[in-house]
Amino acid sequence: MLYFDSDYMAGAHPEVMQRLIDTNSQHTVGYGCDQYSLNAIQLIKEACGVEDAKVYLLVGGTQTNATVIDGLLAPHQGVLAAQSGHICVHEAGAIEASGHKILTLPQYNGKVKAADVEEYIVDFYRDETFLHMVAPGALYISFPTEYGTIYTLSELQEISRVCREHSIPLYIDGARLGYGLNAEGCDVTLKDIAKLCDVFYIGGTKMGALFGEAVVVTNSKLLNNFYPLIKQHGAMLAKGRLLGVQFEALFTDDLYNRVGRQCVELAIKLKRAFINRGYTVEVDSPTNQQFFRLPNSVIDRLKEHASFEMWGPKGKTESVVRFVTGWATTESDIDRLIELL
Amino acid sequence: MLYFDSDYMAGAHPEVMQRLIDTNSQHTVGYGCDQYSLNAIQLIKEACGVEDAKVYLLVGGTQTNATVIDGLLAPHQGVLAAQSGHICVHEAGAIEASGHKILTLPQYNGKVKAADVEEYIVDFYRDETFLHMVAPGALYISFPTEYGTIYTLSELQEISRVCREHSIPLYIDGARLGYGLNAEGCDVTLKDIAKLCDVFYIGGTKMGALFGEAVVVTNSKLLNNFYPLIKQHGAMLAKGRLLGVQFEALFTDDLYNRVGRQCVELAIKLKRAFINRGYTVEVDSPTNQQFFRLPNSVIDRLKEHASFEMWGPKGKTESVVRFVTGWATTESDIDRLIELL
Amino acid sequence: MLYFDSDYMAGAHPEVMQRLIDTNSQHTVGYGCDQYSLNAIQLIKEACGVEDAKVYLLVGGTQTNATVIDGLLAPHQGVLAAQSGHICVHEAGAIEASGHKILTLPQYNGKVKAADVEEYIVDFYRDETFLHMVAPGALYISFPTEYGTIYTLSELQEISRVCREHSIPLYIDGARLGYGLNAEGCDVTLKDIAKLCDVFYIGGTKMGALFGEAVVVTNSKLLNNFYPLIKQHGAMLAKGRLLGVQFEALFTDDLYNRVGRQCVELAIKLKRAFINRGYTVEVDSPTNQQFFRLPNSVIDRLKEHASFEMWGPKGKTESVVRFVTGWATTESDIDRLIELL
Amino acid sequence: MLYFDSDYMAGAHPEVMQRLIDTNSQHTVGYGCDQYSLNAIQLIKEACGVEDAKVYLLVGGTQTNATVIDGLLAPHQGVLAAQSGHICVHEAGAIEASGHKILTLPQYNGKVKAADVEEYIVDFYRDETFLHMVAPGALYISFPTEYGTIYTLSELQEISRVCREHSIPLYIDGARLGYGLNAEGCDVTLKDIAKLCDVFYIGGTKMGALFGEAVVVTNSKLLNNFYPLIKQHGAMLAKGRLLGVQFEALFTDDLYNRVGRQCVELAIKLKRAFINRGYTVEVDSPTNQQFFRLPNSVIDRLKEHASFEMWGPKGKTESVVRFVTGWATTESDIDRLIELL
Repeated sequence: MLYFDSDYMAGAHPEVMQRLIDTNSQHTVGYGCDQYSLNAIQLIKEACGVEDAKVYLLVGGTQTNATVIDGLLAPHQGVLAAQSGHICVHEAGAIEASGHKILTLPQYNGKVKAADVEEYIVDFYRDETFLHMVAPGALYISFPTEYGTIYTLSELQEISRVCREHSIPLYIDGARLGYGLNAEGCDVTLKDIAKLCDVFYIGGTKMGALFGEAVVVTNSKLLNNFYPLIKQHGAMLAKGRLLGVQFEALFTDDLYNRVGRQCVELAIKLKRAFINRGYTVEVDSPTNQQFFRLPNSVIDRLKEHASFEMWGPKGKTESVVRFVTGWATTESDIDRLIELL
Repeated sequence: MLYFDSDYMAGAHPEVMQRLIDTNSQHTVGYGCDQYSLNAIQLIKEACGVEDAKVYLLVGGTQTNATVIDGLLAPHQGVLAAQSGHICVHEAGAIEASGHKILTLPQYNGKVKAADVEEYIVDFYRDETFLHMVAPGALYISFPTEYGTIYTLSELQEISRVCREHSIPLYIDGARLGYGLNAEGCDVTLKDIAKLCDVFYIGGTKMGALFGEAVVVTNSKLLNNFYPLIKQHGAMLAKGRLLGVQFEALFTDDLYNRVGRQCVELAIKLKRAFINRGYTVEVDSPTNQQFFRLPNSVIDRLKEHASFEMWGPKGKTESVVRFVTGWATTESDIDRLIELL
Repeated sequence: MLYFDSDYMAGAHPEVMQRLIDTNSQHTVGYGCDQYSLNAIQLIKEACGVEDAKVYLLVGGTQTNATVIDGLLAPHQGVLAAQSGHICVHEAGAIEASGHKILTLPQYNGKVKAADVEEYIVDFYRDETFLHMVAPGALYISFPTEYGTIYTLSELQEISRVCREHSIPLYIDGARLGYGLNAEGCDVTLKDIAKLCDVFYIGGTKMGALFGEAVVVTNSKLLNNFYPLIKQHGAMLAKGRLLGVQFEALFTDDLYNRVGRQCVELAIKLKRAFINRGYTVEVDSPTNQQFFRLPNSVIDRLKEHASFEMWGPKGKTESVVRFVTGWATTESDIDRLIELL
Repeated sequence: MLYFDSDYMAGAHPEVMQRLIDTNSQHTVGYGCDQYSLNAIQLIKEACGVEDAKVYLLVGGTQTNATVIDGLLAPHQGVLAAQSGHICVHEAGAIEASGHKILTLPQYNGKVKAADVEEYIVDFYRDETFLHMVAPGALYISFPTEYGTIYTLSELQEISRVCREHSIPLYIDGARLGYGLNAEGCDVTLKDIAKLCDVFYIGGTKMGALFGEAVVVTNSKLLNNFYPLIKQHGAMLAKGRLLGVQFEALFTDDLYNRVGRQCVELAIKLKRAFINRGYTVEVDSPTNQQFFRLPNSVIDRLKEHASFEMWGPKGKTESVVRFVTGWATTESDIDRLIELL
């Protein structure tokens, strides 16, 4: 069987796993105060080029989004997000569970437009009615988006400018950050991300870790009491060094980018093969997630040898499907899938 | 250095770690729908002797308590707990963050008395004022308690009877369940626990797993929509099979009890040694946590070779300290510590 | 000056005020346990034709919506509502503040379609992804809607059927219920409302009371612990008899319908006059709220002698405005406004 | 029958009611933006001697406490309060419902001690464990307390000093403020209150209004987005001018203090009479609430002609009872009660 369902189907990348094995019998203090965590944090700050950033290591994506957004917002505020944003759809109401509304914006292949953000804010304060409404208190975007697309540097700069002009913190969900930074045609670097937003997270779970997400706070005015909030949200790991060890591995010898690069290359090879065989690309993604429109007969045939996600019917005879590469995907997996086509 | 700070200082028990290594490169579906998780759940149900229980695998203790209690209570209800209960003190307000008050009961070495529970409930409904107050909607107890003590079978039966008579679900926090079940003089079995309460969790983090807690719901009327609640609380692991693999290991060849038994034996050996040398036992614990009252000069001396937790001063020249054994504690660690005395 | 801004600009209808004056110096028990409240509740149950309904008297609309919806939903659930619904827009996030997402439906002049509700629910459960999403747990509609429109009896029956088939409680926001029931062409009675939904509220504030909303629960399985929830939401009035006295007045000598009928008649007279003078009706409302599209020059002229709400620009030279009649609006007010046209 | 159950049993003081009658047919804008509210706010600021305070008019006490405390706390914080505080006991969990824990302090006849507050805060930050606990984020006290007692000026000054030294906002619940300020032996003025705390509220409901509480924010750094929070908490009245009209009346011709003074005088007269007849004063209160320990036979006899609250049994033959005077209590009521003794 060939596996293309998602990028969290296999365990840890061998280099990450090896570090967990090597350190397994050691005793360290808990809750992330150990030396591995401190070292991982230092490596991340260096990679981001922001020495005075605060970095926190959490376990999973939904809890990271919920904890960060809860910390950013005042009780009368909500968070702006594309209506396709992960927090709007697939987090079971975690944002609302901490008391905050998500204020939805139009999405364009998963992205928001700076102009829409600005219009929302300006309109909001146009008359006194705003006192009866939920005020925008932060902007959530994902990089890459839920559709695998990425923002250009100039798009990010413009979004950042709007947020700063209106004193709205910009938060980037980087569950698949490494696939975005290593995407085909990407002109955005990790340092750009760190410079342009106020808070973001570097996803580990989908990038070769067993689990783990690293929150980077570059705006020193924000999230100054984040540690108890992590605890309150149940996002603090007793054996916190597991997160430290894994992020240390991911940020050693550029592993994070190696995983990103390899997965993107294989995904693009796959996309080209589908295009060459005349199939329609549903969303033109430069990252490790690829969306195709396929005849249902082709899908049935592929399903015998490969697993992948159904994204819904498209008319009576076709459906949209998603293929995802992960650290465990090999060139030979791709070649065999192409053969099946 | 000898480590007695806590039972979450080392990684995973070798048998658990080996299973993680063996399965690392496999592809499985995510979010706990994999075969390892299903198998672990089956093993747990068998161990509990409740074939129709529902079992869920979560990551950590605070998030487990918060998710379960949120699922048990109606919005006008709170949860009864000893004032020393973990949820009252060291979970950063996670219960209140989901909107519920903790209704505190007196504690006796960490335990509650059935009579106090019953009196609270009966008093509560004595007059109409209760309509302005938070109604007791569940009882939280820990086994063993935060002070290492355990309930006898008859105490648990009495608490269970009171809860059932008043239709108050009984929830047991079993973060260290294996140390309780294998405690010196314990007359309670896992099957008793399963029979006497409505929901409980089998702690993995402190019992030899990297992380993981298994919630067992034996009352079929409760928590029927628990899966989205786990997600909402950020307690769902993308690579959910990691939990399945670990609990499978813990419930294979009786590992869970082996870890419990060994740690308790070493802790009791330690207690005896302290007593023999004339030191005062602060709380008479039959489990892997031991509390002693020591002269500060002795503490200073021990600190040079061993790490353990300070629990607070006791007069001017003494302090209470906590020593904890874990799966990685060896007989030789204990012997060396005893020598230091 | 002529006042058409809203239906909450004047104090209480004289018959309501007189009862408050008459009873002012009496002593009664607090919190709604007094004889006036009990009597008002009895009158409401009779008017609704549901002898075994439970009725609760609260102070304001936003708090009523928040309290009822909090009581209806389980923690993993959200409430379905038209995207124009009052709870979505003008309640400052009160629903989310109690932890629940609002699941928005398309709106048609403020109304939802039964087919959309059914499609949402059926789609939701189509595949296992729903376990990561917010489940629909109730449907909120308003009668009349925020645009002054009303549902026909057959529309309500169809919505009710869908809700019951899918075990989704139907909750009707009746902030302006009396204007809906007495609307031009309305074929829905109070008894129909009571029969077709599970919970609704009879608005007092906008119907001649100083304040007050009467929640009617006709489904005996719901909201069985509503009293402490009212208190928790800060919606319980110490001098609760003020609510009893006012609703007693509103349901004596058919005052509630008299207010509704008179305001609707005046509003319709106004609508006809605007139409006769060639102005465009923006939403064709049969109730006490009327929406017109007027040239900005006409608006400026009217503003000298009348106050009303601006609803936003329509092109460069026109705007939409809202005129509302209330218990204090007189026929002569209408005649003078028509003259101004 | 003589009524001493509470101070919210009768309607509004005649001077308040007259203003409501006089203004009833006027049209004003809603939600507290009317001229009456603005004028009332101005009168309150003058009475407090703080020209740049912000003042907000809400409906009831529980909602006021919940809204203010929600606005004061960050998500990781809780509120310190005496364990007898109204928010701890009789508000149905309203504070927890907005996500915050109440951190309880010992109470001394309803009062907290500055030293206990300071000790709590200092202890809290003693070691790193605090990162797993709920941080104190505000102090709630009531003046007078739930037992009718009052703080002396020097006690308040000391509490204020501790709060300011530790950057903990001090919030005073003044549900019965006028009875405290006019208490026997009180050396605290309204201006002292305004100067020593950061936020407080001037209770109207129990001081002669139909309802209404005026929140005064004297610390300009706090609650800067309070208006939408009032709305979110369902605490905003559509016909907001009702609050303005009532507080205008209460702060005209010193009515607020006249009500306070008269009720206190009558209550003290009652206390003296009980003492003279040899009965035991349970709590020595200088305000309008009086607590006596009476033989059950005396209680039975009094109950035939007077209503008052039972506070619980005291041994087998005695009980504690509460007598409260309100604006509608007359000297002749007191005389008749004394005769009954």
